[in-house]
Parts: sequence; C-alpha cells; structure tokens
Amino acid sequence: MMRYKLTIQYDGTDFCGWQTQKNGVSVQQTLSDALAKIAKGKVVVVGSGRTDSGVHAYAQVAHVDMDTSVPGEKIKDAVNPYLPESVAVLESAVAPDGFHARYSAKKKTYVYRAYISPTRKPILDRFCLRLDKSPDFDKIKEGVSELIGEHDFKAFSSTGSSVKDTVRTVYSASVEFGDETIEFRITGNGFLYNMVRIIVGTLLDIGYGKREISDIKKAFETGDRTLCGKTVDGRGLALLCVDYGDY
Amino acid sequence: MMRYKLTIQYDGTDFCGWQTQKNGVSVQQTLSDALAKIAKGKVVVVGSGRTDSGVHAYAQVAHVDMDTSVPGEKIKDAVNPYLPESVAVLESAVAPDGFHARYSAKKKTYVYRAYISPTRKPILDRFCLRLDKSPDFDKIKEGVSELIGEHDFKAFSSTGSSVKDTVRTVYSASVEFGDETIEFRITGNGFLYNMVRIIVGTLLDIGYGKREISDIKKAFETGDRTLCGKTVDGRGLALLCVDYGDY
Repeated sequence: MMRYKLTIQYDGTDFCGWQTQKNGVSVQQTLSDALAKIAKGKVVVVGSGRTDSGVHAYAQVAHVDMDTSVPGEKIKDAVNPYLPESVAVLESAVAPDGFHARYSAKKKTYVYRAYISPTRKPILDRFCLRLDKSPDFDKIKEGVSELIGEHDFKAFSSTGSSVKDTVRTVYSASVEFGDETIEFRITGNGFLYNMVRIIVGTLLDIGYGKREISDIKKAFETGDRTLCGKTVDGRGLALLCVDYGDY
Repeated sequence: MMRYKLTIQYDGTDFCGWQTQKNGVSVQQTLSDALAKIAKGKVVVVGSGRTDSGVHAYAQVAHVDMDTSVPGEKIKDAVNPYLPESVAVLESAVAPDGFHARYSAKKKTYVYRAYISPTRKPILDRFCLRLDKSPDFDKIKEGVSELIGEHDFKAFSSTGSSVKDTVRTVYSASVEFGDETIEFRITGNGFLYNMVRIIVGTLLDIGYGKREISDIKKAFETGDRTLCGKTVDGRGLALLCVDYGDY
C-alpha cells in the first residue's frame, strides 16, 4: 500500500459535490471507481476538503492509499481514460512522507465569478452567478479589504455546521471588475462550510446598498448570521489551488 | 405577421448544430418550439448562418416571422423561460424594414480557442481545443497575417459543399497567446463550410512545422484542400457577432 498525491480538475455542474453521498454522483466516488480499475483492492480517496454541489475545482488535491503497479507519475495517464469528461487528474506522484491531503494543507484559494446582465447568458452561466444590475464597485472593494486578517467567521458559515473553532485567517482577498464581470479571490488557512459563498453574498448586499460595510466587523464580533448576506449559487465558485507549504 | 430580430447566445455542446436535422436537437428547432408558445400559428426562424455541432455563439442573429401579442422588446423575457439553460435570447425587437438575418449580414466575427496541456482540463474542454504542446507562436502570427484580404478560400472549405463562389474577404484576423491559451479572431464578409476550423487547423500545422507559411498562398491559388490542415474540433469555435452595417 502506497500513498499518492493527485491534483484534480473538475467541472462540478453535474456532481452532488466532492463528498460521496447516498443520492447523486460525487467527484470522490467517481475518482475512487476509476482508480479501482488500475489498483489491487480498495482505494480510499481523501480530498483537501469538500466542495459543494455545482462547485468547480481547477486544482483540488487528494491523496489515495492503494496498491498499484503503475508508477506514481503515470497514474494520471492510466486513470484519465476511466474518468468522465468532467473530471481529470492533472498530476500524480508518490506522496511525500507523512503527507495528508487535508491535514497538511496550509492555504487554499477560491475564486468566485459573477456577470452582470438583465438576461441570462448560457456561455457564462456554467461558471458564473448572474447579477441583474451593477453593484457599487467601490463599496465592494472596501468590504473586501475588511476580510483580511484573523477573524471569527462564525457568522459567515451555514447553520448546522458542527465545527467548533470558527476562527480563520484570510491572507489575501481581492476583487476585479471587468466589462461585465466581477471576480473575487480569497486565500485563507481554511474555510468554514459555505464561507466563501456567504462572504460574496454579503459583499454583493453591500454593493447594492442593502448592508453597511460596518456589518462585516459587527458579524465578526457577534457571530450573528443575520448580519450577512445569503449563500450565493455554487456555480460561481471554484477551488483554485491548495498550498502545502514545504511539501 | 411581423418580422422580429433576435440576438441569441448558446452553448453548442449538446446541440447537433444550428440547423434543424432529422437526428439530434438543433438550436433552430429549440428556438422555434419555444417561440411557438408565445405566438399564434407557425414560427419560422432564419439564422445569419449555420453553426456546426458543438459550436457556440455569443451573439447569433436570427429573424422570425410570427404573429404575437408580445411587444418586440419583451419577446426575450417571454421566450427565455421556455428555452433550456443552454440557449437564451439576449435581445429582441421588431426588425427594420427589409431586414433578413442572412442576406442583410455584412460581417461576421468568429473566435477559436485552444489551450496547451499534456493532460485534458475539464473546465477548459467545453470551449477550447486541447493541444499537447506549444506551437511556434511567431510562425502562427505570420500565417494569420496572410489571411487578410480578398482570397479564394476554396481550399479552406470542406468537400461536398455546393457553394460556387468561394471568394471571401477577411477584414481582420488576429491571434493572442496567453499563459496556456491561444485565441484566434477572424472577421470576414462570409465564411465557407468549416472555413474557420480548417484555417485554424492549417495555422496549427504551420506552428508545429508540418506546413509552410507559403502553403497558405498556394492554397489560395490552387484551391487544393490537401495544402490545408484538418478541420479542428467544433468545441473551440464560437460565433462572436454578426454586423449588419446600417441596420
């Protein structure tokens, strides 16, 4: 039994998310099934973290413990033919000693995209949220800068989450405005359930004048979910990369 | 019976193309069926031209002759709920006098995208061709500039096409190279069947040293299809816009 590190890209549109569930097809199960074709015995796939239904990944990282005669670097070429068009292994290698896809992760970067149009645009809809009209860009930019640093993000997580320590550090957060697009980027040491989507929902509310910039600070202080915006659609979200520091 | 002008966006992945066919779902038929829900009697949809299976459109233009109580500008909002996620009407209006989506078109612009990666990338695959390795960018750039002007593009069209006049004018042609992407843009007064895809196939052959830049000129002079590259995958192609001049 060896441990391998895999870097995976997927279009999350047709998946129930990363995590194997009773209903729907998960990325994790799809990978596990494909890897079983080139392995002897059971294959356990452990991701850096879950992504929700409809959420994409440019470079999700996972480790797998399995027995195979395929050399580490060749696993990607051996397994890709068994994967559907929506998933591919970009890189594969024997994992460094002690490597764990989840526990060894130091930083993650997410991107969230939206476009502005009164009518829906099918080419953009797959990877972007649609906004009817332009929000106030300056206000959003100011809101984004409030996120940076160590904060208690409890208010920015979905209720029902069982995580006890809700303090996270955001290393960088930025927003870029194109002709008809908005792109948020956020890098942190970890993210609570739905955290990025609630952050974006809150920033958009600020941009539309429905909330104040000061509500972000109040949300950090009080943990009050009602101070934040709604959980915006998963289709605009993508895991961009996972940073393992020295690994 | 009134004539309306519609601007349409579609993700062509799951369509057999623009044109209604015996097998497969076409964009034209999908639009016609949806428009029938808001019209009295038959609806005829005439596009600016066909797009092939898998080819996308940011702004295809069509005219429709139909009887409806919905005001021209409101047709888009009335019909979009009846269309699948992959198609939407972006703009609608009563057509100007004498307007014909096909015959009134003055210029069309197509974009063709490719990415360079030894492994497939699911997020890019929908709208890009994958190339294993980088072609010679300078050679491709030189090849692109050869296309501009009035030429006989017979060699750059698929055999079996019944068109007699194969002379077309390319007003502009350009290529941009990103970190891992190539984007071709070409504007002309009209395009033969598969012309853009064969042009891109030829340019890529030049970039990989399989053909000479001088082959383009020879192909114009001789009409010899074998001097050109293959018809590259439709997924990388998108109709960007149709220009109607004074209309």
